[in-house]
Amino acid sequence: MRYSMLAGGKRLRPILVIAAAEALGESRCSVLPFAVAVEFIHTYTLIHDDLPALDDDNFRRGKPTNHKVFGEAIAILAGDALLTQAFIVMSDVASLGGIPEKEILRASHEMAGAIGSTGVIGGQVVDLESENKIVDAATLEYIHVYKTGFLIRACVRCGAMLSQADPSQLSALSRYGENIGLAFQIIDDVLDIVGDKKMLGKDIGSDLGRDKATYPALFGLEESRKKAELLVETAIDSLETFDGRAQPLRDIARFFVERTF
Amino acid sequence: MRYSMLAGGKRLRPILVIAAAEALGESRCSVLPFAVAVEFIHTYTLIHDDLPALDDDNFRRGKPTNHKVFGEAIAILAGDALLTQAFIVMSDVASLGGIPEKEILRASHEMAGAIGSTGVIGGQVVDLESENKIVDAATLEYIHVYKTGFLIRACVRCGAMLSQADPSQLSALSRYGENIGLAFQIIDDVLDIVGDKKMLGKDIGSDLGRDKATYPALFGLEESRKKAELLVETAIDSLETFDGRAQPLRDIARFFVERTF
Repeated sequence: MRYSMLAGGKRLRPILVIAAAEALGESRCSVLPFAVAVEFIHTYTLIHDDLPALDDDNFRRGKPTNHKVFGEAIAILAGDALLTQAFIVMSDVASLGGIPEKEILRASHEMAGAIGSTGVIGGQVVDLESENKIVDAATLEYIHVYKTGFLIRACVRCGAMLSQADPSQLSALSRYGENIGLAFQIIDDVLDIVGDKKMLGKDIGSDLGRDKATYPALFGLEESRKKAELLVETAIDSLETFDGRAQPLRDIARFFVERTF
Repeated sequence: MRYSMLAGGKRLRPILVIAAAEALGESRCSVLPFAVAVEFIHTYTLIHDDLPALDDDNFRRGKPTNHKVFGEAIAILAGDALLTQAFIVMSDVASLGGIPEKEILRASHEMAGAIGSTGVIGGQVVDLESENKIVDAATLEYIHVYKTGFLIRACVRCGAMLSQADPSQLSALSRYGENIGLAFQIIDDVLDIVGDKKMLGKDIGSDLGRDKATYPALFGLEESRKKAELLVETAIDSLETFDGRAQPLRDIARFFVERTF
């Protein structure tokens, strides 16, 4: 659990929880356990995705994957335990006393919904079933939205829920999260082709090697970048009623397309 | 997910949640989602335990194990999704309106604590590391308490927490859960030797085949049964301040040692 958690990574998902909360005037301290929990969840999905039965990847965050170091049994259990730990830590928000139990329960429900069979795992299953098949644009978008987009959107929505966002704020932040989520995955596909292995900390070309459906494969590199940029503009536009406290969210959105790692 | 959930099983853990709640005068309807969640959790642990990288079992609940039917990738993801679904369903208790959010959050926290790295998964790891080694009685008890006992105790404690048990009631029910939890696993070890494959719905002799530490291997069959019976008597004694509404809990405790499946 420590090996994979402390291997590095951009910590984008916890940052999104905090940035969404701060955009609404909530303090970062009060949502910090929840932000940490989200990184536990992200790390669990990486450990399980990398397993031989799934993507069979050798490198992640610049280090050998969990099962390469500890074996498959421990990698499976470390992932299980990180997912479980996330739900322990999420409820720790209550012990800080700043946020009502009702909102914590609502945010946990949102997060669990985003990562289960109707979210991340649903996308993962369609992704698995699409390997070595010709995949159309609609299926590709489905995979990306479920496998990556839902968790990113949930980070933003949970940050908002914990900060007692009103319905119109929540809806604006959902649109923001939805758009940056898809943009993030499109750029991930692009970086799998043009990225630098050392910067990325994982093997590149691994999608191509597995004949995986990707945006560049369907639309080409330039068109894919354009699509991601358009999504990010839409995300930033959806924050127009927010003040300067939403500036980190705007900057994160730009980073999502400009990043090289 | 459906295949393993609907394959049968005794449903003892959800029954314990309900029986603990009813012993305190709470209605079964108000804790039902939580009880269902516990069976999701139990089923997830079975699917992952049976994987080739772990126990590599072929039969469970009278049917081929999940990975035998759907492959390892889907078995890993089905387990992940059931664990996740448990946390979705636990928070559904809130939507029924009968139980305060604070108690739901407390019970979810208890359940997550019981099944993570300091609970079920901790026991699983020690179990894995003890294969093909000589194990003493203290290590064996550690494995059983963590791997099986904590979840069973948590079912009882969560039923009590959701019913707003006072501290002395919660402590009595914890002692009850602790004792039946260990008794359950001792009898499980016994049935792995003397049980009937058809009744049990899984391969027998599988612990012996893997040179696993078990109670009968350390103490013999008769001594193991005696120990389990003693634990069950202690469990029933700890309910002495409870009235007739705790009768199902007493009957369940007796079933735990008398069962043949």
